[in-house]
Amino acid sequence: MGVLGASGYAGRELCALLVRHPGTELAFACANEQRGATARFGDRSVTFLAHDDAPLDRAQLVFSALPHGASKRWVDAAHAAGAKVVDLSADLRPGGARDAALVPYGLTELARDEVRAASVVANPGCYATAVLLALLPLLVRGLIAPGGCVSVAAASGVTGAGITPRQDLMFAEVSGDYRPYALGNTHRHLAEMRAVMRALDCDADLVFTPHLLPVARGILATITVPLAEPLANPLDLWRAHYASEPFVEITDHVPALRDVVHRNIARIAAHAAAGVRHPTVIVVAAIDNLVKGAAGQAIQNGNLLAGLDEAMGLPA
Amino acid sequence: MGVLGASGYAGRELCALLVRHPGTELAFACANEQRGATARFGDRSVTFLAHDDAPLDRAQLVFSALPHGASKRWVDAAHAAGAKVVDLSADLRPGGARDAALVPYGLTELARDEVRAASVVANPGCYATAVLLALLPLLVRGLIAPGGCVSVAAASGVTGAGITPRQDLMFAEVSGDYRPYALGNTHRHLAEMRAVMRALDCDADLVFTPHLLPVARGILATITVPLAEPLANPLDLWRAHYASEPFVEITDHVPALRDVVHRNIARIAAHAAAGVRHPTVIVVAAIDNLVKGAAGQAIQNGNLLAGLDEAMGLPA
Amino acid sequence: MGVLGASGYAGRELCALLVRHPGTELAFACANEQRGATARFGDRSVTFLAHDDAPLDRAQLVFSALPHGASKRWVDAAHAAGAKVVDLSADLRPGGARDAALVPYGLTELARDEVRAASVVANPGCYATAVLLALLPLLVRGLIAPGGCVSVAAASGVTGAGITPRQDLMFAEVSGDYRPYALGNTHRHLAEMRAVMRALDCDADLVFTPHLLPVARGILATITVPLAEPLANPLDLWRAHYASEPFVEITDHVPALRDVVHRNIARIAAHAAAGVRHPTVIVVAAIDNLVKGAAGQAIQNGNLLAGLDEAMGLPA
Amino acid sequence: MGVLGASGYAGRELCALLVRHPGTELAFACANEQRGATARFGDRSVTFLAHDDAPLDRAQLVFSALPHGASKRWVDAAHAAGAKVVDLSADLRPGGARDAALVPYGLTELARDEVRAASVVANPGCYATAVLLALLPLLVRGLIAPGGCVSVAAASGVTGAGITPRQDLMFAEVSGDYRPYALGNTHRHLAEMRAVMRALDCDADLVFTPHLLPVARGILATITVPLAEPLANPLDLWRAHYASEPFVEITDHVPALRDVVHRNIARIAAHAAAGVRHPTVIVVAAIDNLVKGAAGQAIQNGNLLAGLDEAMGLPA
Repeated sequence: MGVLGASGYAGRELCALLVRHPGTELAFACANEQRGATARFGDRSVTFLAHDDAPLDRAQLVFSALPHGASKRWVDAAHAAGAKVVDLSADLRPGGARDAALVPYGLTELARDEVRAASVVANPGCYATAVLLALLPLLVRGLIAPGGCVSVAAASGVTGAGITPRQDLMFAEVSGDYRPYALGNTHRHLAEMRAVMRALDCDADLVFTPHLLPVARGILATITVPLAEPLANPLDLWRAHYASEPFVEITDHVPALRDVVHRNIARIAAHAAAGVRHPTVIVVAAIDNLVKGAAGQAIQNGNLLAGLDEAMGLPA
Repeated sequence: MGVLGASGYAGRELCALLVRHPGTELAFACANEQRGATARFGDRSVTFLAHDDAPLDRAQLVFSALPHGASKRWVDAAHAAGAKVVDLSADLRPGGARDAALVPYGLTELARDEVRAASVVANPGCYATAVLLALLPLLVRGLIAPGGCVSVAAASGVTGAGITPRQDLMFAEVSGDYRPYALGNTHRHLAEMRAVMRALDCDADLVFTPHLLPVARGILATITVPLAEPLANPLDLWRAHYASEPFVEITDHVPALRDVVHRNIARIAAHAAAGVRHPTVIVVAAIDNLVKGAAGQAIQNGNLLAGLDEAMGLPA
Repeated sequence: MGVLGASGYAGRELCALLVRHPGTELAFACANEQRGATARFGDRSVTFLAHDDAPLDRAQLVFSALPHGASKRWVDAAHAAGAKVVDLSADLRPGGARDAALVPYGLTELARDEVRAASVVANPGCYATAVLLALLPLLVRGLIAPGGCVSVAAASGVTGAGITPRQDLMFAEVSGDYRPYALGNTHRHLAEMRAVMRALDCDADLVFTPHLLPVARGILATITVPLAEPLANPLDLWRAHYASEPFVEITDHVPALRDVVHRNIARIAAHAAAGVRHPTVIVVAAIDNLVKGAAGQAIQNGNLLAGLDEAMGLPA
Repeated sequence: MGVLGASGYAGRELCALLVRHPGTELAFACANEQRGATARFGDRSVTFLAHDDAPLDRAQLVFSALPHGASKRWVDAAHAAGAKVVDLSADLRPGGARDAALVPYGLTELARDEVRAASVVANPGCYATAVLLALLPLLVRGLIAPGGCVSVAAASGVTGAGITPRQDLMFAEVSGDYRPYALGNTHRHLAEMRAVMRALDCDADLVFTPHLLPVARGILATITVPLAEPLANPLDLWRAHYASEPFVEITDHVPALRDVVHRNIARIAAHAAAGVRHPTVIVVAAIDNLVKGAAGQAIQNGNLLAGLDEAMGLPA
């Protein structure tokens, strides 16, 4: 396997997981700005290539963790060279402008069969992964109140903002702080989440406010959902829906970042809201933004593309 | 002035503010478990008394930062001894069981005149302060959609959980973590917030999910509000409502904990939600839970009770 | 294998490592205050027993992570029941009052052969592990200036202070802070370090000042050492000394906590001090206080006691 | 007063302190890269000028917080325009190449009289301030063992590394980490510290290892000092030496960053080292690197240059 865009946080996480993957080898890792530099992943030293030097024809499977906008070109090139591709960028995700409809959206727990049959997969965004996995049991059953408003407050560790140095991401600025961003329902992942909701025949409004947390890793999404009818025991529904999924844990405790970091797991709780007149459920999902929200889910999809066991090489 | 319950975080903050207050003196500070111990606040050394030794008749104004349940008895005693009292506990707040209706609810920006005329005031809870200050411009104008659902996700620094040692609040547990609590709309402040909403003729549902942040201080509440009708420019409404308030800042930037810690300020932004069919506003409020959410607001109220300038001795 | 004192940080780390250990099974874990409670380690649920219920005769190897003072009695009991024992407490370490001389001091890289032949081993303290591994190449060659003063400033994450709730270890107190403790050369590990230095014929003074870091895990020791004679290239000496050690990394970069947490590794650098008249070397060693400084080193020793490969089950 | 280099951490701290200074006004603040931008300091909005537009002749006192190397030229220009100048850069400090000898070294507690008579002052480095204030009571009395080795391990918060974005200073890299830098006794402040030691007739070796702490602010220096003769009670010596100093606190507790951040205070403890044959004292000093280690000390010196009370406008 090969990795494009290997020097960002998601790219590094991919390399770290792939060098320990029992069913494959890391054939190459590309990072233009660090070409020639050597990085250590576990026992393995990896020298980054320039992307122009990527031996695309030497890998059956390529992961692109290139930035949004820069990725599609390389996805096409890898595909043309005969590789199957998992694109971690937003370039091919639904809700965007391009020919995304032609590429399966790799929320594995929703689209396992399409992924297995595909040659290129668009890996979901980190926030979208947390929110959609939380909502899937309701979405596929049409349980969200028609015309209602699903309100999401999500918080992410700083690796979600990328590795490029920025003053507002320095330790002295982030430590002790907490703040929202993309205020006014303007975050890029909204289109992606809405497209999936629409595809599952949900017409509810979606309001999404992300926040920056003073932690390195992890996303936690807290979602208030108006229901078409009351749910007697929400946890039972989530448990039934995800009963056979290896990477989703339903908990009657409180999901917390601690329980998911460095794991390819979404940990979800769902509780009926007390003291309200309209039936409402509060769903909370926690993931590691770099694992289940990026590199881990990409390897889930890559395993399927390669005909391997979906869980191979993944820390559960 | 005197402080009861002076060894908790709110009590300490009260002492620290009162020793610098130009219009009053800290006459005594009580803390049963630390009686006899000396604490330093600025230039001043304060020796804690047992509560039974509090010279209640020597202070015209007494602040009680005693725990919920333990406070009312001492509020009554101080009042009987002739002092005016600000109670920082939940004992006299609306929504509780007791004769709270008889005591003004000291959300100063809402109830300034009642506070000024009172002899005992119930100081609002920290979360309730952030949420209600965020919502007041809508509540007093009846702009929240009747029968709608106001969804609040709020996050607090660990001082909000008190100073008593608990394993789940130790550094090694909190660092790198983030999690909700009181899942299922069960937090104690809900009754307090709902009582104020009802008193202002709002019948909307209220869903409130608090979270624990890996920071020492600060609360940030992110609120999705369904509107009865669209608001052309939400910020204008909030600016107009709070134009003459010394301790509320309306910002077209993003409210952040950094901008409010150690200040008696609520910093608020309001944005119309894009891409939704029903008019919705996203309001964000940030306060220091120990200052505007506790000791600072208590001194605002105490100043009014004592006939002093409301802003005296407060860090804006 | 069995674990006594399994609910503290070192005990939990032992359980977490042992459930993944390919050469052994976790037969029981005892924790008096949490007896009957169930904890999860990887895929395994473990129910804590009371110590009085420990089936000591059912384990060939027992680890005691009981507190200092409480451990020896259980070490003796386990030994009497036929088990080999690694004692992580200070009870049997050199420099203490008891019959420590009879039990090998399990600094594995120094005493591998004695450990292999023993039935009970005293596992070194976390600070002592970092400091002694840093100094060993000098100590065994007699290179420290006779009568000189070795000055150590070391810093530890808060898990080093144990899991019992204390106000001074709560997040709100530790965050943003940094401070020494045991000022005046009074830390308990001093006797242990001095005993090893004397046993290796070093008569230098030892000054040791520990500090509390606002991190969960890790110890970094920075040591200024007066030399009997100049060292041309200190790194060469350390590299030669540890050439065949699987758990010591000599680096020409800067040792950092990030590089050692969750690994059974000591990472060490050594540099000649520039601009001084007397030859002096600055040695820095970083370890994870819970792994190489406690549970990991204990398993190294346990593997030797059990006749297994020393590195089995350890994260390098 | 005017500030050059106002957009760095020290420059911002200067502006924040000067707008609250009762004896002066902030006439201008320059920051080339942010010229035209407006920053808020307390109640005051300040628009940054380009340095070429600085009205140097309109300020009686100018502070330069420009980077090392870029400062001297502007110090000269301000001086030529008739202003007195405090230079916070290293350009004019002792130990450097230039005509530093002509400019007093503004360690106020050592050189108050020279500062008062000067027109340009070199403000000490942050580490040098902590280390030299810790050592002064020994240095001025000749109590350090001739030919001995003073060993310093110091740790600084990340603001000490400046505000320019760097990957290694981002939250995700610093959080949970701790590491030394400038290994091998190579830090720039060494020359400055040695020059002062030599000027006070101390010939001891000095070994200095700085570390990067995961906190925003604060420096703590831990110093092992060989003595010419034993000190009966070290604290008495430090207390006597600093008895009349407003900005030095001697404590029999443990100095900690918490006690000094946002204050213009050095907090110092001194303890005889137990269990050593050669008399040795362990001295610990804590300061806020941006206040007593930079902007606060600069204002101390500026007050003296301007004939004001040395303590005016400073948070003690």
